[in-house]
Parts: sequence; C-alpha cells; structure tokens
Amino acid sequence: MNELLLVDRLRRISGKGGGVIRGIGDDCAVFRPKAAEDLLLKIDQLIEGVHFPASMLPEVVGERALARALSDIAAAGGDPRCCLVALAVPRTKADRWILLFFGGLLRLAERTGTVLAGGDLAHDDKVHCSVMVVGAVKRGKALTRAGARPGDHLYVSGRLGKPWDQRIEPRLALGRKLAGKATACIDLSDGLALDLHRLCKESRVAAQVESVPMVQGVSLERALQGGEDYELLFTMPPRLKPPAGTTRIGTIVRGNAGTVWFEGQKLEPRGYDHFA
Amino acid sequence: MNELLLVDRLRRISGKGGGVIRGIGDDCAVFRPKAAEDLLLKIDQLIEGVHFPASMLPEVVGERALARALSDIAAAGGDPRCCLVALAVPRTKADRWILLFFGGLLRLAERTGTVLAGGDLAHDDKVHCSVMVVGAVKRGKALTRAGARPGDHLYVSGRLGKPWDQRIEPRLALGRKLAGKATACIDLSDGLALDLHRLCKESRVAAQVESVPMVQGVSLERALQGGEDYELLFTMPPRLKPPAGTTRIGTIVRGNAGTVWFEGQKLEPRGYDHFA
Repeated sequence: MNELLLVDRLRRISGKGGGVIRGIGDDCAVFRPKAAEDLLLKIDQLIEGVHFPASMLPEVVGERALARALSDIAAAGGDPRCCLVALAVPRTKADRWILLFFGGLLRLAERTGTVLAGGDLAHDDKVHCSVMVVGAVKRGKALTRAGARPGDHLYVSGRLGKPWDQRIEPRLALGRKLAGKATACIDLSDGLALDLHRLCKESRVAAQVESVPMVQGVSLERALQGGEDYELLFTMPPRLKPPAGTTRIGTIVRGNAGTVWFEGQKLEPRGYDHFA
Repeated sequence: MNELLLVDRLRRISGKGGGVIRGIGDDCAVFRPKAAEDLLLKIDQLIEGVHFPASMLPEVVGERALARALSDIAAAGGDPRCCLVALAVPRTKADRWILLFFGGLLRLAERTGTVLAGGDLAHDDKVHCSVMVVGAVKRGKALTRAGARPGDHLYVSGRLGKPWDQRIEPRLALGRKLAGKATACIDLSDGLALDLHRLCKESRVAAQVESVPMVQGVSLERALQGGEDYELLFTMPPRLKPPAGTTRIGTIVRGNAGTVWFEGQKLEPRGYDHFA
C-alpha cells in the first residue's frame, strides 16, 4: 500500500468532532477552541528497544503511545481533545502492523474522546513514534507542578511499583476532579523520587514522605524509583477532602527547593532519566 | 549533563509569549488561544539517514526540522504560535550537539514568532526528531487542499527543482496574504506532480499545467517530481490578482478527481512517497 492509500484508510477509521474541523488528509489539522478554555499541549515519544521491546504487539504499542501522553493531560487536569501521530516503521513491517498500531491507539482515543487529527508516516530501521496531544481545561484552571505550599498534604493515586509493561490507564477522571482544587500535580512516569523532586523544585518547597501504597511483593526501591506507574501525585490544602482512590503519603514542608525526605532520610532524585 | 539540567538550560534560551502561558518544565504546555481564531496543528518528523545525512550540522538539522512544519502552517495561511519538539539522539552525541540543534531551531523560531513550548528528550541509535507546530488563523479562514474550482488559475511561488539540502524558507508571508483569497493551497514537499494530485483529489477536480518556473540547469523531471521545494502551490479565481513572486502555471479543470495534465499528457502522481 502506498502512503495515499494508507492515509485514506486511516481517515476512514479515525473519529470526528471534539473541535477538529479538518483532520487527516490536509497540510494541517484545523482545530476550533471553545471560548474560555486554555489548551494543554504535550509531545511524547515511544521508541522500540528503548521504551518497549520489539516483541510488543502493535496494538499495545499504539495504545501505550497515546496513553503516556494522555497521562500528562490528566496531570494538568484536562480533557483530551485531539492527537497527532508521527510514526516511523521498518520496511519489513507490513501495512497490517501500521493498521493494528492505529487500531490500538484509536480504541483508547475513542474511549477518552480524543480525535486522531493528523499524522506523519515514514520508514526507519525500527519503530519510532511521537504522539502529540491537545487537551483543554477551563481558563486558568490548569494544574501545574508549581503551586504546592508548605502545609499541603501530599497524595498519590493507586499503588506504586507496577510492572512496567502493565496497561496504562491514564487518570483522566481523577485529573478532572483535581482541576481547580489541587495546588500542584504531576504524573508518575519516572518514579516517585524523581517526579516528587520535580514537583517540589517547581513549587520551591520540600516534601516529607511517610509511607507509600505499594503493589504487593515489590521492593521499596522499585516503588520509590521505578518508573512507568502513570499514577497522579498531587498536593492539596489540608481542609480539602481528597478524591476516592487516593492515599495521603506525606506533607509539603519548607526547605531547599526539591528536597524530599523519606523516613527521616534524604531521598535522592533518582529514577528513570534518559540522560543520567 | 542530565535531563533536569538540560531542560533548565533549554528553558532559559527558549522564548515566551505568543499565547504560551506555561512552557518547558511542566507535564504539559498551557496555551491560551485568542478569540475568533482557529488553530492549525501539524506534526512532522526528520530522521537521520532518511531525511538528512549524518554529516549535517546540528544547527541546520534543528532549523530544518522546524522549517518543514512551518511550511505547512504557511500553506494553511496561518501564523505560527508555538512548537513542541521530541528529539532522540545517540549517546555518542554530546549535550553540545543537542544545544546546537536547539540553537538552530530557536533562531528560526524567534524570526517567525514561534515559541518553543515543550519537548521530550530520549536516547536512540540515531537522530530522530518530531516537531509539532501550533499555528493560528482567523476563524474559518484556514486554507485547505479542498476548494479549488474549475476555472481557477493555478500558481506556484518561487522556482522548482531546488537542491534538496538548500535552506528552507517557509513561505509564511505569502501564506498570510493568501488566507481568505486562495481557494486551495498546499506546500510542495513531495514534488509538484504528487502534491498537485493531492490538491486536485481533495478538491475533486483536475488540473492542466502549461509550464513551470524551474531552477536553472535542472531537468524537467526533477522540477515536476523532485521533493523538498517547500514552495506554495495554490489556486485563485481569475478575477483576483496573485501576490508578487508567484507564477501562473495552469488552470483547474473538470475531470476525474486528482488527474493532472501536463503538455497534453497525464502526469503520474509520482514524487517523494515514503510508502511507495
């Protein structure tokens, strides 16, 4: 199949709506924002041999590529609107692989109200995918990493230390509940130690962690420094009740920006860092 | 340098404004659209060994990666607002390479009013870059490939058949002039034969091409089927005067959607097609 035919096929299976006026098949997608909304923009890449093994099923790769970017939209308290996908695949991978990849991606897209609005296809030695997601949030209500204040309680959703290849369920419903309530929020993609350090650094505060909810059987190190949990880590003033399914793990305190204390010891900002 | 330091550095050298409320350093960038504007979204990838040779200077790669996506914003008649960049580089490339890449990209970004709003860094065997650009255009005024009508005159900017490694100058000023005037527009990234076919197919019309302005010394085949020209190809009703620097090359006619005639012969939709 050549690119023209493949694009035609994708166009037929991709959705419509969500502000997307013109989608696949033009130089640009055209998106009409609603009044009084801010947009959230995120780009994330997924590389064969780096972020996933060559043996991973194409539909799982597709789903995962979108899920990772959606997790960041959740962390900002937003609703996903549309996505654009740049995909490079080896010539040895048949069109079937590409269509299965988009099949997996589009199932999650449909479930979360994300329209596939455009993309770019190329051949390369191995699979390399970049997903860009546009989300929306009420004007001025986007959650960021900056905003945690000393005295805020620190919470996490779910349990930490999940197997890295487990299905990612972006915490979009939780993120929406937190918008306008949480003082700061980040998604746990690189591990609690590193991501909490980032949140504290942006907020110019320190944090004290007492205990974390862990997946049964994993080591404390895995729960603190393993990546790919895709849960939300957030802070709230003590007077607010946290949503169900979240656990308080500590408190925001004054101190050197970015310092994290765990059981009386400094927790080093180690985790999944591609550039360490 | 680790990722935290590199991101800090990029944050300091990246611009502000253009609707970007929160840029590099958070889970998502936050962008505030202006009232009565539609947004243009484009993702484009640039791969070492596929789109450029390993020997290309990092600042040229960076500039080129952004220029290609900006060319699509130009074709839609828009103003670029911000961009997000996913970059994978080999471990052998020092941080210096990354900073030079962003140096080249940011020079073009500044010149065109494009704010670097976010990104994602990873290591891979070779350089792989995806650039996502957000542009803006007056509501309902985005140029698309669909809209050319029989009788419209067909124009192209510049001359065709440029060396593929020549600097790309996205035709943003021309695109802005065409918004609301041209009936259809596309940028010439894959060659006149293929891109005109695409425009005609989307507009459900055919085209007759009489002659094309060529770079001195190149073959007709190169001018018609060579890619990487990044000029604008557009259609206008005969009563409108085309902007300076453009040449009329033919006429839109009734016929099978997508058919292109050149000197009485059918021009096959051949050009740069990664999936051919």
